[in-house]
Amino acid sequence: PLTPSMEDYLEMIYRTCKAQGYIRMTNLAEQLNVQASSATKTVQKLTEIGLLAYEKYGIIQLTDKGKQLGSFFLKRHKIIETFLKNIGVKDDILHQTEMIEHHLTLDTVESIDILNKFFKDYPEILQQFLKYKEHLSKI
Amino acid sequence: PLTPSMEDYLEMIYRTCKAQGYIRMTNLAEQLNVQASSATKTVQKLTEIGLLAYEKYGIIQLTDKGKQLGSFFLKRHKIIETFLKNIGVKDDILHQTEMIEHHLTLDTVESIDILNKFFKDYPEILQQFLKYKEHLSKI
Ligand SMILES: [Mn+2]
Ligand SMILES: [Mn+2]
Repeated sequence: PLTPSMEDYLEMIYRTCKAQGYIRMTNLAEQLNVQASSATKTVQKLTEIGLLAYEKYGIIQLTDKGKQLGSFFLKRHKIIETFLKNIGVKDDILHQTEMIEHHLTLDTVESIDILNKFFKDYPEILQQFLKYKEHLSKI
Repeated sequence: PLTPSMEDYLEMIYRTCKAQGYIRMTNLAEQLNVQASSATKTVQKLTEIGLLAYEKYGIIQLTDKGKQLGSFFLKRHKIIETFLKNIGVKDDILHQTEMIEHHLTLDTVESIDILNKFFKDYPEILQQFLKYKEHLSKI
């Protein structure tokens, strides 16, 4: 079982590796806003459990299993962000997403994803909701 | 600023006080599944910052400010639970609610509350979503 912090590492590593195939330890530490020493420790742990390949020159890559998980964590993040935007949340979306993403079951993430898709397929219903919301806030 | 644990205390104290006007320390510790000593510490802190009245015989009551907050935390809890039920989440609703309730802004809680009300006022739209969801899961 991965800790929230390990999930954040895999999500961030996946984000960058998707674009450039690898990420450097120094760059990872910067992006996660942690000390290089603590990034090194976590990367070593994730390597031990078979999710990362990390050997020489500070270059980190994902194993197939790591890719699967990283891809899921990034998707989960986007699903929550999209939901908050859909229902008209204005502030602090990134921070709230970071705080709650680790605590939702797959069932919940999938249900929210389907709600996002429902609103995308029926934009008139999302509009109806946003008008309803605007009306309620005016009372 | 209250910690998640303090928020849980106020929510639980409010739940019980709403019904019987007060709660005993032993009963509170039981309900929160914590040691009496740690319950006592937190109750003392909440008393110091003016949210609880706790003096004799182990009897705890809420101040007006404590009532306001406790009522909000209980409402917030119910809003998240209702949302998860609405979108068809089956398992682990209580635990997920406990994990995320402390990390949502007032704006987000209100937006989710309005979504719940929207589904209550337009039950045919909630039905349409649940059918859409059922259909998607069958593919
Ligand atoms: Mn994230
Ligand atoms: Mn709660």
